[in-house]
Amino acid sequence: MEKLILNGRLMDRENASIDIEDRGYQFGDGIYEVVRVYHGRLFTNELHLNRLFLSAEKLSLRIPYTAQELTAQLEKLVEANGVGTGIVYLQFTRGAAKRKHHFPEKSETTYVAYTSELDRPLEKMKKGVKAVLSEDIRWLRCDIKSLNLLGNVLAKQKAVENGCYEAIQHRGETVTEGSSSNVFIVKNDELATHPATNLILNGITRQVLLDICRKQGIPVREEAFTVDDLLGADEVFITSTTSEVMPIVQIDGKMVGDGAPGAVTRKLQHAFEREINGLSAQLASGTME
Amino acid sequence: MEKLILNGRLMDRENASIDIEDRGYQFGDGIYEVVRVYHGRLFTNELHLNRLFLSAEKLSLRIPYTAQELTAQLEKLVEANGVGTGIVYLQFTRGAAKRKHHFPEKSETTYVAYTSELDRPLEKMKKGVKAVLSEDIRWLRCDIKSLNLLGNVLAKQKAVENGCYEAIQHRGETVTEGSSSNVFIVKNDELATHPATNLILNGITRQVLLDICRKQGIPVREEAFTVDDLLGADEVFITSTTSEVMPIVQIDGKMVGDGAPGAVTRKLQHAFEREINGLSAQLASGTME
Repeated sequence: MEKLILNGRLMDRENASIDIEDRGYQFGDGIYEVVRVYHGRLFTNELHLNRLFLSAEKLSLRIPYTAQELTAQLEKLVEANGVGTGIVYLQFTRGAAKRKHHFPEKSETTYVAYTSELDRPLEKMKKGVKAVLSEDIRWLRCDIKSLNLLGNVLAKQKAVENGCYEAIQHRGETVTEGSSSNVFIVKNDELATHPATNLILNGITRQVLLDICRKQGIPVREEAFTVDDLLGADEVFITSTTSEVMPIVQIDGKMVGDGAPGAVTRKLQHAFEREINGLSAQLASGTME
Repeated sequence: MEKLILNGRLMDRENASIDIEDRGYQFGDGIYEVVRVYHGRLFTNELHLNRLFLSAEKLSLRIPYTAQELTAQLEKLVEANGVGTGIVYLQFTRGAAKRKHHFPEKSETTYVAYTSELDRPLEKMKKGVKAVLSEDIRWLRCDIKSLNLLGNVLAKQKAVENGCYEAIQHRGETVTEGSSSNVFIVKNDELATHPATNLILNGITRQVLLDICRKQGIPVREEAFTVDDLLGADEVFITSTTSEVMPIVQIDGKMVGDGAPGAVTRKLQHAFEREINGLSAQLASGTME
């Protein structure tokens, strides 16, 4: 029987349901995270929970657990469902209250977490994927990982309708991010990605990659770049929790570079692989127990 | 026992609940309407349902009922709950599906409707209310009455924290609309309100008011105006389904005009009152039966 967590309680998936006046359902008044599971273990969980508490703070949303308590709950859930390679989805909303736009005086945070099996996209990472350009029409607080995702939904839908994996969004001439990923370009062995402002979500895989670059001395600028820069780049890749480091080899039908994943992208994929295997090595040596 | 409609079925409020993977809950992927009830009857219901179908079309969301079928259901609900003066809230989401940003291949629209008793704000309409200015940070499809309402929520919260009734939003210098209302200004007996573009929701009360103005020969421009125009206006009022024609007598602590509801606002309140009483008269004469 598939399990989930509802308000801190481990229970059967089929018994879980939400009130019609939950503010998550009527206003998208809530936040979420998707944490990767490799080898049955949470990957970069601490970074995700840091961001979760940051999103909560930005919306004055109360999370009635510590990061430690949440981690213990999520680990228990992953174990209960026997997830090997997959994800944990966790979501907090401002809870149920009589519908009024402003924050209710009294409401209890609704907390849901569940798991899914999800393979790594190994074949796609090897060959690269296609993207479409899409005007970024989202609100100006994309730094909050909120449930107001219609802009992202419409962008991704455009990608799918065009036979593409992702939509790369741009606000006027400035490239911001994918519909559910961050975007990096490589030009003359130097990387660039949009800075972590209010216009993008500061992705965890983005943060891990930037850290890898710093450690390895790979030059990277956190600076906005244009659609022209994107289309003229030697290499383009996106990063996300589920897509890892994913090469983009075609944008709006035009080849990126020579149309195959580039050397810098490959190097970063391998470095990211080592992060995942690092988790594995820790497990084998028992240092995580 | 309070009743509601869930997916076309009249049922007890307490038995209704939503799946945790309803796209309304995870993406705000849905639309809604709030219809006024006066004298136990739906007010301007046809205009609301027109807009509902328009919002659905813009999001490729399927509504598996005709306007006629919906009307019959809503009337039955209002009667079942014995609502005299109040509202009907109705909401359609793309339904439950395994979480992916793009539209699911298969999902069934989730439809919820419920009622609330809600008095007319007669005292406030007489005296006028205060407003704060708030930067409009919302997405660029405010013409869709969607469940992505966090921008509106944060603006209204700012109003409440400042002891105000409403937040008047502006994109840079341009006034757009309230957090849950449209904004009108009066200068030298001429009205102005933001045109019905992608930057505002084309309110039903706004439409009714514009119609009244046309019929009565009151000059009104559907043109964007600035924050300075707003602060220098002779009169300011907002319109919404629940607030009707509501005078704004103070903005960010500064008096509008002489600080009392103005003559043009009063005139329009009376005209709107006649629309409501028209419904009443129709009822009395039996022309609505």
